Amino acid sequence: MKIILDAMGGDNAPLAVLQGAAAAVKEYGVDLILTGQEKVIRECAEKNGVSLQGMEIVDCPEVIEMCDEPAMSIRRKKNSSLVVGLRMLKEGAGDAFVSAGSTGALHVGASLLVRTIKGVKRPALATCVPTAGKPYLLLDCGANVECRAPMLEAFGVMGSVYMNKVMGVESPAVALVNNGAEESKGTPMYQEAHQLLKTNPNIRFVGNIEPRDVPGGKVDVVVCDGFTGNVILKLSEGMAKSLLGMVKQVLYSSLKCKIGALLIKDGLYSLKDTMNSEKIGGAPFLGAAKPVIKAHGSSKAMGIQNAIRQAKTCVENDLCGTMERALEQITAESETEAE
Amino acid sequence: MKIILDAMGGDNAPLAVLQGAAAAVKEYGVDLILTGQEKVIRECAEKNGVSLQGMEIVDCPEVIEMCDEPAMSIRRKKNSSLVVGLRMLKEGAGDAFVSAGSTGALHVGASLLVRTIKGVKRPALATCVPTAGKPYLLLDCGANVECRAPMLEAFGVMGSVYMNKVMGVESPAVALVNNGAEESKGTPMYQEAHQLLKTNPNIRFVGNIEPRDVPGGKVDVVVCDGFTGNVILKLSEGMAKSLLGMVKQVLYSSLKCKIGALLIKDGLYSLKDTMNSEKIGGAPFLGAAKPVIKAHGSSKAMGIQNAIRQAKTCVENDLCGTMERALEQITAESETEAE
Repeated sequence: MKIILDAMGGDNAPLAVLQGAAAAVKEYGVDLILTGQEKVIRECAEKNGVSLQGMEIVDCPEVIEMCDEPAMSIRRKKNSSLVVGLRMLKEGAGDAFVSAGSTGALHVGASLLVRTIKGVKRPALATCVPTAGKPYLLLDCGANVECRAPMLEAFGVMGSVYMNKVMGVESPAVALVNNGAEESKGTPMYQEAHQLLKTNPNIRFVGNIEPRDVPGGKVDVVVCDGFTGNVILKLSEGMAKSLLGMVKQVLYSSLKCKIGALLIKDGLYSLKDTMNSEKIGGAPFLGAAKPVIKAHGSSKAMGIQNAIRQAKTCVENDLCGTMERALEQITAESETEAE
Repeated sequence: MKIILDAMGGDNAPLAVLQGAAAAVKEYGVDLILTGQEKVIRECAEKNGVSLQGMEIVDCPEVIEMCDEPAMSIRRKKNSSLVVGLRMLKEGAGDAFVSAGSTGALHVGASLLVRTIKGVKRPALATCVPTAGKPYLLLDCGANVECRAPMLEAFGVMGSVYMNKVMGVESPAVALVNNGAEESKGTPMYQEAHQLLKTNPNIRFVGNIEPRDVPGGKVDVVVCDGFTGNVILKLSEGMAKSLLGMVKQVLYSSLKCKIGALLIKDGLYSLKDTMNSEKIGGAPFLGAAKPVIKAHGSSKAMGIQNAIRQAKTCVENDLCGTMERALEQITAESETEAE
């Protein structure tokens, strides 16, 4: 298996990307193709003692910056690490593409260069978010900041297929984020999306979910527009970090607490570990014709390594083929019912 | 001081409302006017041994339900606890109105019956949210689910005035929620709001804030549309509850942890206390001509009690007069500058 990796993407590139790549080669035995400025990559690797074994480098002079307008940068920066990587994926030079670069550029690039599977207009960025109970799949997480109601319906269907076929959840519960349980809640777009999801025969829609209940882990798929999803994803991270920081402060606040801290520290470490977004590593673009994985922009080495692991899992489980077949089957069933 | 209280509003009405009211009368020495179904109120108080001392009851046969369409219910249910209470506030029978009922109906009612102060089109629901550092004012929290950019600009100004004049914060830092730090991020509405806030000379706008950084307590005012604000408010609560629950689970997971738990429990209690939304109690509608306080729909007695305390503070600090004068001053300064 060959995974293409954007060596220039993310806040900590290229060093964190190279460290994550080296760890992934060692741990998972994958072959990597790095796209990026070869000179910069080689110098960074040498300076920091990172091995480039198992990695091929494809020199790309250009870099898409976070502030670049997504559609424009995909059209103009044809020799960027992101565009070259996506083109190589399309042409079959690798099996999946991983990048911690601009979500917007990756989204536009996945749509335009890699294309979408039949029946999907816009890929959705989907992340498994950890909770005290089972993790839930959140989509869209930030690729489509403006959505129409039928897009939210499609997110519900794709999320349901992903949780069922890839994560093995029987009859996933799909919920719509909203500012109240009643059908009449939310913007007109959310009200319309509620009706579309409710009447879609191919998913088990359980109604609106209030943001308060999202971390409870009671549902399998949480559907919303990309702006809201981005808020949910990032605020969950921020709250986890902030609250665990406050707990830590309590533990250091007195001698008595410090002794108590020694006794519970193993348990707290495992809790911190559960909530660590770096361990999840990346989010697949559901609906893209081939696996495109977005690693967190602030990924450190572990985040990159886990995004590569996730890309490998997507390839092994034939995520895109499975999604396409499941959507075809749904369409066929609807047509049969309609006859 | 007389505070009007909607006895029928909220998930736990009327019992929790009456318990909170009784505690507020005892603690803060306020006089209360309860609006609601007198027979139900008296029976509930008697059955549960809640004293109605210091409270006058105004019998209102109708109740606005959570599922009622807001504008319609304000027009049609003229004898509801919410409409009667707001009308009494307008007419000067009381100094402030507190309700845990429908946010939508309260918002429409505040706009139509109590009216707004000069220069404000739509009141915004503003909540002080606790963090590890200083609390921040979040607005809008759910009253205006659909916003145009100038509304977000007005939220920034009103929030800044509130934090300065009522909370005593010198030159409050105002930030706009967005899915990235760059000006180009977000929906077109958010992009426009960014420019309006940035060029408004009367606030100290510090740019976009990513949801990850919101709980850090680095800014004083966090501006967003009501749908997003509702997500931030409720998800923050949900995450706090969920994470503290996970910490508790760790503390009971082994004998060693149980001993550790005994040593740190006081510290953890005070942390839980800091994050308890019931302690904040309620959210003022900024821009309304008189103090209208929304208590959380799920308020228990403590939530109601604290919302009444907050109403008292708003009256004592002349929130509405202060807001009006500050906005007038801003307008006057802009006109002088323009000359």
